[in-house]
Amino acid sequence: MISFEKQAQSGLARAGRIQTPRGEIKTPIFMPVGTLGTVKAMTPEETRELGAAIILGNTYHLHLRPGDDLIHQLGGLHQFMNWPYPILTDSGGFQVFSLGKLNKLTEEGVTFQSHLNGDTILFTPEKSIAIQQNLGADIMMCFDECIRLPATYSQIEESIALTTRWAKRSKAARTTDQALFGIIQGGLHLELRQRSLDDLMEIGFDGYALGGLSVGESNQEMYEVLRSFANQLPESHPRYLMGVGEPEDILEGIESGIDMFDCVLPTRNARNGGLFTSLGKISIKQSKYREDPLPPDPNCACYVCQNYSRAYLRHLYLSKEILSMRLNTQHNLFFYLNFVRQARQAIQNDDYLQFKNAFLEKYKQA
Amino acid sequence: MISFEKQAQSGLARAGRIQTPRGEIKTPIFMPVGTLGTVKAMTPEETRELGAAIILGNTYHLHLRPGDDLIHQLGGLHQFMNWPYPILTDSGGFQVFSLGKLNKLTEEGVTFQSHLNGDTILFTPEKSIAIQQNLGADIMMCFDECIRLPATYSQIEESIALTTRWAKRSKAARTTDQALFGIIQGGLHLELRQRSLDDLMEIGFDGYALGGLSVGESNQEMYEVLRSFANQLPESHPRYLMGVGEPEDILEGIESGIDMFDCVLPTRNARNGGLFTSLGKISIKQSKYREDPLPPDPNCACYVCQNYSRAYLRHLYLSKEILSMRLNTQHNLFFYLNFVRQARQAIQNDDYLQFKNAFLEKYKQA
Repeated sequence: MISFEKQAQSGLARAGRIQTPRGEIKTPIFMPVGTLGTVKAMTPEETRELGAAIILGNTYHLHLRPGDDLIHQLGGLHQFMNWPYPILTDSGGFQVFSLGKLNKLTEEGVTFQSHLNGDTILFTPEKSIAIQQNLGADIMMCFDECIRLPATYSQIEESIALTTRWAKRSKAARTTDQALFGIIQGGLHLELRQRSLDDLMEIGFDGYALGGLSVGESNQEMYEVLRSFANQLPESHPRYLMGVGEPEDILEGIESGIDMFDCVLPTRNARNGGLFTSLGKISIKQSKYREDPLPPDPNCACYVCQNYSRAYLRHLYLSKEILSMRLNTQHNLFFYLNFVRQARQAIQNDDYLQFKNAFLEKYKQA
Repeated sequence: MISFEKQAQSGLARAGRIQTPRGEIKTPIFMPVGTLGTVKAMTPEETRELGAAIILGNTYHLHLRPGDDLIHQLGGLHQFMNWPYPILTDSGGFQVFSLGKLNKLTEEGVTFQSHLNGDTILFTPEKSIAIQQNLGADIMMCFDECIRLPATYSQIEESIALTTRWAKRSKAARTTDQALFGIIQGGLHLELRQRSLDDLMEIGFDGYALGGLSVGESNQEMYEVLRSFANQLPESHPRYLMGVGEPEDILEGIESGIDMFDCVLPTRNARNGGLFTSLGKISIKQSKYREDPLPPDPNCACYVCQNYSRAYLRHLYLSKEILSMRLNTQHNLFFYLNFVRQARQAIQNDDYLQFKNAFLEKYKQA
């Protein structure tokens, strides 16, 4: 199991520590996404050296390929992928609703067709937990309904009721000492969010996550939920904002009292030539970088910025070299892990707002 | 410039040392290929840690993309790609004859169309040297004609005469202290090979290379040239067998007195799921590895074999993960660099034939 301890606060922003059997996680934390048993383009050692304390695995993807039974047989996900540190697995809920074809939603669960081979598959709360137990994640997530928007108030109301029933079944299905987080749904309706949270707290989980954000609503709508609601999540437990997001979104989440974040942006953008820098995002493919001897981010201390020019990175990208995806990913993960580390430091100095404003002032220049 | 010193001999096999301004190269040596300013999928640090003392760059490819003028402006190829150790560049001869479209061959040089954008480009000995000087390689190669086979005796005779005239022009075009190697052609005709060598030795080069082998002839035909001819190359200079090859070919070359080898096989095969092991080549995509917890090569000390199972590597390959190409490349380069290092040790122990036979006995089991 895990335990959480708050160490410092600055406004609502929190610095804390999650103890897990596989090591400590200092919060706030960004969790790189390792969909298919690898943080794309990185070795586990590199991901660790960049400062990652915990990474994400995807239940849906790993169930389809190579199969959680196989991973279990080979010693679990940690051993399979050579990452001995904490892993959080999602429940597959988001993916079965977004990637699977021809969903059929019943009280029992969701029937969908594999995006790989069209096989018909049923995911239930019990199935999701069984898979996550096979994978052996340190933190598991409840199987939730990710309702398609737009939806009416009463549709969302029904959906959070279903998510609550599934959360109960998820917890009941657990037969190990892996931690389990509940997922709060409710769209942009604060009273439904509160109801969802109350339901989940009554069941009792090791941490609480905000799901169903950053799914198409405006930034201001998401920020409004964060500002009004994030601090309602129990003080004593880790708070996780799922699938978010841009650096400014994460800073907003931290300011609202969130502890944990994950997002594919740093890794996915990297593979498309997009780099995060202290002066904003750049696209390395642009012709203005053709002869540019500067590193991607002159203010950055990462391996890439210490050793390579924009001109070289542009050449690698245009030549479709594998090293392009490696170096871009390495830089972006450093950027994310580093600014969240700085945010933690600022919270410990009770200086968070000043840090955030200074960061954004530079970042939004570009 | 460079200097060569022979340190030990076992039969005709030689162990030696090439001194270059950027460091020492212990021979025999395998040179990983870094076509476009990167050994595909590897960082320079990794390539170095695997034991590479020198890598190859491709004049043709780098001229087209990103351009040797750009590389020169950014400090040369070493700085551009962050590899401070020796680099050998080929002359582009092989590529203009194999990749370029619509070649027109004259005394002056070769006109061809870029395989990238169809631009018409003229390569001459002077142009090749100018590009290689822009790149700043420690060892440059003469621009040679790579005649298409089959060819008649008199066609090959004319071709080596042209290669000799181009070699003279290549040497005359050099305005730096970069080393320059001559390339011996002559197909499978030993007397033409000898004539080509005599011509080149009269001009005088810093090393001598065998070109035009491993281009479609049988192994036995190539081995025959190696056995009968390689030891004719000057004792006092490095001997380089270009573009070769399979481990057994390299062992044959070493036995015949060759010092330097390069080949895309370890890196290219890696990206297609092909792994070299002490028990022969395997294809990691095969279904028999689905649940296999063993490392690719149980006898191998490399990072990959210490940390990953065949089942995991198969999963990465089938999932088209970038890490698949990285780990496979890392393993294969280790395998190549390691067996050539062992060959050197065996020569120093005057035990080369026994080493070779023991290696092949295991290797050919598969």
